[in-house]
Amino acid sequence: MVHLTRRYWFSASHRLHHPSLAEEENRDLYGKCNNPGGHGHNYFLEVTVTGPIDPRTGMTVNLAELDAFVHARVLEPMHDSSLNELPNFQGQVPTTENLCVEIFRILREGWPELESACRARLARVRLEETSSNFFEYRG
Amino acid sequence: MVHLTRRYWFSASHRLHHPSLAEEENRDLYGKCNNPGGHGHNYFLEVTVTGPIDPRTGMTVNLAELDAFVHARVLEPMHDSSLNELPNFQGQVPTTENLCVEIFRILREGWPELESACRARLARVRLEETSSNFFEYRG
Amino acid sequence: MVHLTRRYWFSASHRLHHPSLAEEENRDLYGKCNNPGGHGHNYFLEVTVTGPIDPRTGMTVNLAELDAFVHARVLEPMHDSSLNELPNFQGQVPTTENLCVEIFRILREGWPELESACRARLARVRLEETSSNFFEYRG
Amino acid sequence: MVHLTRRYWFSASHRLHHPSLAEEENRDLYGKCNNPGGHGHNYFLEVTVTGPIDPRTGMTVNLAELDAFVHARVLEPMHDSSLNELPNFQGQVPTTENLCVEIFRILREGWPELESACRARLARVRLEETSSNFFEYRG
Amino acid sequence: MVHLTRRYWFSASHRLHHPSLAEEENRDLYGKCNNPGGHGHNYFLEVTVTGPIDPRTGMTVNLAELDAFVHARVLEPMHDSSLNELPNFQGQVPTTENLCVEIFRILREGWPELESACRARLARVRLEETSSNFFEYRG
Amino acid sequence: MVHLTRRYWFSASHRLHHPSLAEEENRDLYGKCNNPGGHGHNYFLEVTVTGPIDPRTGMTVNLAELDAFVHARVLEPMHDSSLNELPNFQGQVPTTENLCVEIFRILREGWPELESACRARLARVRLEETSSNFFEYRG
Repeated sequence: MVHLTRRYWFSASHRLHHPSLAEEENRDLYGKCNNPGGHGHNYFLEVTVTGPIDPRTGMTVNLAELDAFVHARVLEPMHDSSLNELPNFQGQVPTTENLCVEIFRILREGWPELESACRARLARVRLEETSSNFFEYRG
Repeated sequence: MVHLTRRYWFSASHRLHHPSLAEEENRDLYGKCNNPGGHGHNYFLEVTVTGPIDPRTGMTVNLAELDAFVHARVLEPMHDSSLNELPNFQGQVPTTENLCVEIFRILREGWPELESACRARLARVRLEETSSNFFEYRG
Repeated sequence: MVHLTRRYWFSASHRLHHPSLAEEENRDLYGKCNNPGGHGHNYFLEVTVTGPIDPRTGMTVNLAELDAFVHARVLEPMHDSSLNELPNFQGQVPTTENLCVEIFRILREGWPELESACRARLARVRLEETSSNFFEYRG
Repeated sequence: MVHLTRRYWFSASHRLHHPSLAEEENRDLYGKCNNPGGHGHNYFLEVTVTGPIDPRTGMTVNLAELDAFVHARVLEPMHDSSLNELPNFQGQVPTTENLCVEIFRILREGWPELESACRARLARVRLEETSSNFFEYRG
Repeated sequence: MVHLTRRYWFSASHRLHHPSLAEEENRDLYGKCNNPGGHGHNYFLEVTVTGPIDPRTGMTVNLAELDAFVHARVLEPMHDSSLNELPNFQGQVPTTENLCVEIFRILREGWPELESACRARLARVRLEETSSNFFEYRG
Repeated sequence: MVHLTRRYWFSASHRLHHPSLAEEENRDLYGKCNNPGGHGHNYFLEVTVTGPIDPRTGMTVNLAELDAFVHARVLEPMHDSSLNELPNFQGQVPTTENLCVEIFRILREGWPELESACRARLARVRLEETSSNFFEYRG
């Protein structure tokens, strides 16, 4: 079994604000990250796939196919977006923890469409919010 | 003369939208970067100071003093902010070109306050918007 | 369970020298790293915390609180220091292996003070000595 | 148990082409990577060793000895080479998946020669093909 | 005047071999880089454009247009290629010095087609061959 | 004229302390950097050479020769050393400004020995002290 990791990035804004908390509680909890205009990041996304090497091709999964899948499912809706306006964040705060879990969920849900990955599985999503903090989720 | 460069970063959101253009012109010009919710970046800021080495201290400028100055003037108002809401961007679009020039202008204006830099001058501001594009301004 | 990693750095000097070995044995074992004046590094420290996402805040642990804890316990005593003079290295050589284990021990010992981390645990310390070697310890 | 990782790099060219497939199948499968002249990469190689810290030396494995071993076994034959011409790739396509597994196999085979590592084991080989994809193998 | 730099990358192989030198001279001059199968690199290419900021758009040059231009002229022919087989290197050795000058020449020749850059000029090409050496050419 | 830059690194410790100042003045001026045991860094050194491309070799300067020269003159004496103990810093404080100028002086003094560089000149020394500050000197 080999682990293949592919690295992508997208830019987005977010505002840390929980709709069921009072204004003051939100400010106390999130500080400047609660300002109404939000702020933003360049998020670096790593997708790790685990599987055997196909002896015919020497590959675990077709990279062009994986890229097209991640672009369609994650990068297209999220790049140059405001995360708070996405359907995924209508009921939860777009912290990077929640974003990481949400991206894992999106990819796993669509995984069966990824033909070349039929024997490989989604093993890990890693998301860098800044150069000094990142998050990992393995399902 | 030695060139000293100090590297900082801040996170902010921006929306590319010119108030004197029509909605449609804005969309044509800026594409997804014109979406109303904006998007964001981790901006890496480099400030270059040029000057002689003080023979008594072996230093060009006191780094602690330079850091405090850049924090007060640039990082404090811009980190975790929405650039479009800052006074600096009421009359111009917060593209990274304009942001770079604006930061240079802010630092040069306050420069005389920087006591340890009395013999050094602000030589360059370099601003990375993403890991694949950056801007430089030398006044 | 989500893994959150926070990245810090500090500069320090060390001399590889074991007090219970003869001068010559020390020189043979550590080479130039045994020179009496020592040498130094910029150490990059990664602290990984594993825990559930708090549904109220969307966070695993409060980053500001974690930062304050790591600063007080590790960065404050170690940054701009000579590791050989710290109490932690009176009985052992300050190799990066030993430093990595020592930082893990320091953080785990103080962990109960980290209020926001009450449901999260310290999972990993990773320490980069140079850009071409690093060490990991998981307890 | 501590994990020590050492990072190396080498430059090589490869052509993705499977000898038992027809020309057309090779072109369909590998696209531009099948062009007869090949193309190339700077490969970054990470070797992870897991073991106890030797209480006498404070080290897991002697780095100078590990470096000499990896240079002799991997970097010397592969740096500035065409991977397709190496004995290792006469029967298989030099994809980075296969290269990663092959390097692991080479290192494990020679491991007993690595005297200072007698209590440590080879735990992982990680190979970066470009800054946006990498592969890991743990045996 | 603002300087905008855009960063790209491509993978290619090259063999250092001068057709008008004897085999032995080539081996003496280029060492392992002269092996017949060649070797390869991930080249990072930086293109710097200098010009005024357009007051209507806040931009120096349209990035999407610049990207399309560089892709068509440089990345499309060079990515996943063997440099020695390109028309550009029939009369000269594909050292990174020559490659850097050649890319500058290609971009300057096509520059008038770059509509949005009508007031900006090509100022610099910077080419990284490995993480420890790079080349710059300014015309 | 092409600019070739080569990147090296070395680890060293330094103590900021001026022998002609009183203890208290030293502490006020340099803070923690004045502690008697010193601290240390991984210094990244960039050496830039400017010259024409030799039409016979396609190269500006022979890299193997340049590397041997920089190793002998700078890396050998400075790597794993305590800068304060070097002859170069008996009369001046080893700040990174002074170290940068000193390395430039050392290289320029020995330059005539560098046979392959007979038509190229030393153009710049750039020294990174940490990932957030660096110094440049051009003579």
